[in-house]
Amino acid sequence: MPNWTYHTIDENDVLNLRALIGEEQRMLWKEQISEDYSHDELGGTSSWPELVIKPVSANEVSAVMKYAYEHSIPVTARGSGTGLVGSCVPMEHGIILDLSLMNNILELDEENLTLTVEPGVLLMDLTAFVEDHDLFYPPDPGEKSATIGGNISTNAGGMRAVKYGVTRDFVRGLEVVLPNGDIVEFGGKVVKNSSGYDLKDLIIGSEGTLGIVTKAILKLLPLPKKTISLLIPFPSLEKAIQTVPKIIKSKAIPTAIEFMQKEVIEDAEEYLGKAFPDHQSEAYLLLKFDGNSQDEIERAYAKVADLCLEEGALDVLISDTAERDESIWKARGAFLEAIKGSTTYMDEVDMVVPRSYVNDMVEYLHSIQREVGLRIKSFGHAGDGNLHAYMLKDNLSDEEWEKRLNKAMDLIYAKARELNGQVSGEHGIGYAKKMYLKESLAKDNIDLMNGIKQVFDAKNILNPHKIAQL
Amino acid sequence: MPNWTYHTIDENDVLNLRALIGEEQRMLWKEQISEDYSHDELGGTSSWPELVIKPVSANEVSAVMKYAYEHSIPVTARGSGTGLVGSCVPMEHGIILDLSLMNNILELDEENLTLTVEPGVLLMDLTAFVEDHDLFYPPDPGEKSATIGGNISTNAGGMRAVKYGVTRDFVRGLEVVLPNGDIVEFGGKVVKNSSGYDLKDLIIGSEGTLGIVTKAILKLLPLPKKTISLLIPFPSLEKAIQTVPKIIKSKAIPTAIEFMQKEVIEDAEEYLGKAFPDHQSEAYLLLKFDGNSQDEIERAYAKVADLCLEEGALDVLISDTAERDESIWKARGAFLEAIKGSTTYMDEVDMVVPRSYVNDMVEYLHSIQREVGLRIKSFGHAGDGNLHAYMLKDNLSDEEWEKRLNKAMDLIYAKARELNGQVSGEHGIGYAKKMYLKESLAKDNIDLMNGIKQVFDAKNILNPHKIAQL
Repeated sequence: MPNWTYHTIDENDVLNLRALIGEEQRMLWKEQISEDYSHDELGGTSSWPELVIKPVSANEVSAVMKYAYEHSIPVTARGSGTGLVGSCVPMEHGIILDLSLMNNILELDEENLTLTVEPGVLLMDLTAFVEDHDLFYPPDPGEKSATIGGNISTNAGGMRAVKYGVTRDFVRGLEVVLPNGDIVEFGGKVVKNSSGYDLKDLIIGSEGTLGIVTKAILKLLPLPKKTISLLIPFPSLEKAIQTVPKIIKSKAIPTAIEFMQKEVIEDAEEYLGKAFPDHQSEAYLLLKFDGNSQDEIERAYAKVADLCLEEGALDVLISDTAERDESIWKARGAFLEAIKGSTTYMDEVDMVVPRSYVNDMVEYLHSIQREVGLRIKSFGHAGDGNLHAYMLKDNLSDEEWEKRLNKAMDLIYAKARELNGQVSGEHGIGYAKKMYLKESLAKDNIDLMNGIKQVFDAKNILNPHKIAQL
Repeated sequence: MPNWTYHTIDENDVLNLRALIGEEQRMLWKEQISEDYSHDELGGTSSWPELVIKPVSANEVSAVMKYAYEHSIPVTARGSGTGLVGSCVPMEHGIILDLSLMNNILELDEENLTLTVEPGVLLMDLTAFVEDHDLFYPPDPGEKSATIGGNISTNAGGMRAVKYGVTRDFVRGLEVVLPNGDIVEFGGKVVKNSSGYDLKDLIIGSEGTLGIVTKAILKLLPLPKKTISLLIPFPSLEKAIQTVPKIIKSKAIPTAIEFMQKEVIEDAEEYLGKAFPDHQSEAYLLLKFDGNSQDEIERAYAKVADLCLEEGALDVLISDTAERDESIWKARGAFLEAIKGSTTYMDEVDMVVPRSYVNDMVEYLHSIQREVGLRIKSFGHAGDGNLHAYMLKDNLSDEEWEKRLNKAMDLIYAKARELNGQVSGEHGIGYAKKMYLKESLAKDNIDLMNGIKQVFDAKNILNPHKIAQL
């Protein structure tokens, strides 16, 4: 580990920072700090901040950063804390900037189809707001209580990536506070931009290690007038997943293609206390189509439905009412929580492979369960190659769990590399996955990342020990 | 200017490099080098290479880079040389790597909808190839004889950005030779990726200053089955352009929205020796719609046609045959060459503004012609805010031209900044626009760009003096 030294926050710092912030209740120190601030959703990475500050403006973020920069105090940004890899956990303690109060929707510009927001706006509030205006923000990660700032920091993906892409594809411009406290803009409302290096996309997915996003200009689309879902039972998971590349090759463009297994659906039924609308099969594909007319969508899905039946699907259940749709997608949305509830503790892998290799990866996950001695459950985005695999601790001792988990992780990431995959499709690297990132990339890539980190943050005060930084 | 020193290529270097390349005819030295290699399409930036090498593989590029790195010889990559800002002009002489022989289409992967290509593939060959497979590569810059490598290096945009986005949006992965000669991969065939800093997007638009692209994995879409164009005459340019934000606000999604003025259309008629299909007006909007059925497209364009008529359009001419379409789009495609042919010399501005400000900018261009004493012609992508303005030298003396051109440039870029625009929408910064980039961005942004350049290229041998590097 490099030899960084940081200043420990003392009473004098607290007084100075309070003068910058003004309102006392927006600073938490010592026993005022709740345990939540020491971890994220998954909880595998833990470290306490010395001080929590809840800024309400870019100017406050800037003032705190300038102070931290001058005094070598580490700073870690945090949104809703719904991450899974420890990105928002302050490994060197110092200050947590809790951005949840910066939750204003600043401007809807219908002539440019952009929405300008502060980073603390929750994804569910953002999508509700734009849908009220008959507009559409397509990125659709499962966790709707995440903040848009958090989504930008991990380049969150979600279900609709098959057709629409990921968070990166919907960020036109960012206001960012640099580690030295300067407030800068990358990109803007413009649709095209070839004006120098793409600093905006460098910030997206950088997990708060290069700068703190204080404003984002998002691209919107018109809201599709109609959506339809297809729930398609297959005789086996293999049959289901092997159909996906054929759907892509058929030139249909579904909005989403998910795969689901009976065992995970049952977890969701138990977690939600609600029956899933179908029980005939071990494995399902769940597809969504959207468009502006019934005709258009029907043409698209009829072709896919026929193709699935040709490939051995047992049935094609069409869901075109909001109620039915909800019962299916709610189950899908509850998978993470449901699996979490089915065991004592778990860890996850969020690898992405070329979508033609999804079946190879899922089969591999099944095959190693006995070898490593762990239950592994998986679900995911069959249409974009992004798989979520969950290793379950169950009744294992801590020691045995660590041993088996590490073995499973090593095997899975090695397999992902073999299939030309990447360590993370949408959850990021944070603290928990950085050893695997290092193994999966060439030394040049890691060196370039750390070089860029150094350019942005020479004093290494912004969220240290994350991504490529060992 | 920083104090970089480079080694001048001597006979010994030529012998050593020849040993790396093998075939003599793929190296040009001294009088073998044609004048073309000293400039790009626009010709405003001029500097000769000492040696031209035409590699046929990433390994050859790597071998040359390793040699150049060791001996501090500057290297500049070149595709078709169709750029407009001097990006491929070797300001410090040294080696030009002419990548035009690396023009193989390597793989069409229909299960992942990707196309893997070498950088020297021409855009027109690429689009023809994928369309033969009923697939679609949407980026559509006017210059079809550009290479895909050149398109990636400037993040080229084109007409279809309104609906589909730009080159960046269709690059999934890159193989890149770094200045030290190492061959690395950024991204891949994967649809999602949150695995560390986004090095792929840093390379895209970096104009050959950070690495040399030797392979690209492109994202494809199914080819829309039907396209229709609307040519819409308006009583004035102002009326035409002011209708564009209303089209966007109406939630229609045209593939392209271009504006055209009579004077530029006349240049194109003369240049092509072919009449434009309509002459009733001073100003036109040209729209394209695509989709998979006549119905779907008709629904979309009928709404827009009505809206244009409400806004004062004189007529709506529907072009749904290939012949008619060609006569319109060929004129549009010839604008740059036609304007060039109408004067002795010209220079250009490729600014991009939020699309609601296009009219302000076009009016401003008209208004300053008298003030600066120059004819200024413009056309461009009304739907995405990217305007091309051409300052014409006509019969001015060199001295007077320089003076008036600089004044016009200063005024136009100042106006673009005032409208929250950027210096370049799609042509890049290169050598010609770097002073304007510096003026348009904060010092932090420029410093970050130069810091990143230093991380990739500590010896500054790759295409020096470009983008942010004064």
